[in-house]
Amino acid sequence: MSTEEQTKKDLYYMQRALAEAEAAYKEGEIPVGAVIVCRDRIIARAHNLTETLNDVTAHAEMQAITMAANELGGKYLQDCTLYVTVEPCVMCAGAIGWAQLRRIVYGCPDEKRGYHEYAPKAFHPKANVTYGVMEEECRTLMQRFFQERR
Amino acid sequence: MSTEEQTKKDLYYMQRALAEAEAAYKEGEIPVGAVIVCRDRIIARAHNLTETLNDVTAHAEMQAITMAANELGGKYLQDCTLYVTVEPCVMCAGAIGWAQLRRIVYGCPDEKRGYHEYAPKAFHPKANVTYGVMEEECRTLMQRFFQERR
Repeated sequence: MSTEEQTKKDLYYMQRALAEAEAAYKEGEIPVGAVIVCRDRIIARAHNLTETLNDVTAHAEMQAITMAANELGGKYLQDCTLYVTVEPCVMCAGAIGWAQLRRIVYGCPDEKRGYHEYAPKAFHPKANVTYGVMEEECRTLMQRFFQERR
Repeated sequence: MSTEEQTKKDLYYMQRALAEAEAAYKEGEIPVGAVIVCRDRIIARAHNLTETLNDVTAHAEMQAITMAANELGGKYLQDCTLYVTVEPCVMCAGAIGWAQLRRIVYGCPDEKRGYHEYAPKAFHPKANVTYGVMEEECRTLMQRFFQERR
């Protein structure tokens, strides 16, 4: 696949992840969304549900990983790509590592809670990371959420 | 509470966590067990179910945190203690941090996947950590499991 094709696909799937984040926003949840793609097919889509489920573990990525494993009938996701609107936290990065996801694409960084700062080696050693896809849109949604709650 | 009383209680609750680990062992799961205690009452008990549920996120600690939040009706567990037979991994350490657990007691270290190496600042800054409670028993159960599978 050419770089141009890849960029186009990344944009397409990140838009789907952002749609999930917008759903979270409407439900009063911190607006983070994720999709998992396997061979050009979305096999899982999820958004943050920590408030609704009253559960700190209900991050978008965690739910998407569980769903994708159910869909594939296997718990390892080596052939899959995770798209998530915000940089994964330590917990999600750990789960991404266990699932052996080989490609992770995220929108905007999370300086306060992101894995870069707190668990930089959590992913599979062969994992490939792309960031900054729709960064502005992903960040703006987060900022809007927190500004309204100040 | 005196140190002696605390030690006695820690031993008691770690025995309960080890009973969970033994249940995992019997089910062919990597034998890790956890309990969460709030004001001298076990409010959650769980063991690793990654194989049974086909889900990398189904670690003992993750399930125990979700259960404890359900039991208390709130997702923060500041007044609780987590007892777990093996040092938490990055994922579980991240979840422990989000749940704001203030005391963590574990049995044996996990040099390969433990949070100490990969996410040393994942817990709440005020969290208190005790380790080495029933260390030999917790480690022996793990070693037995892996030896049988070689």
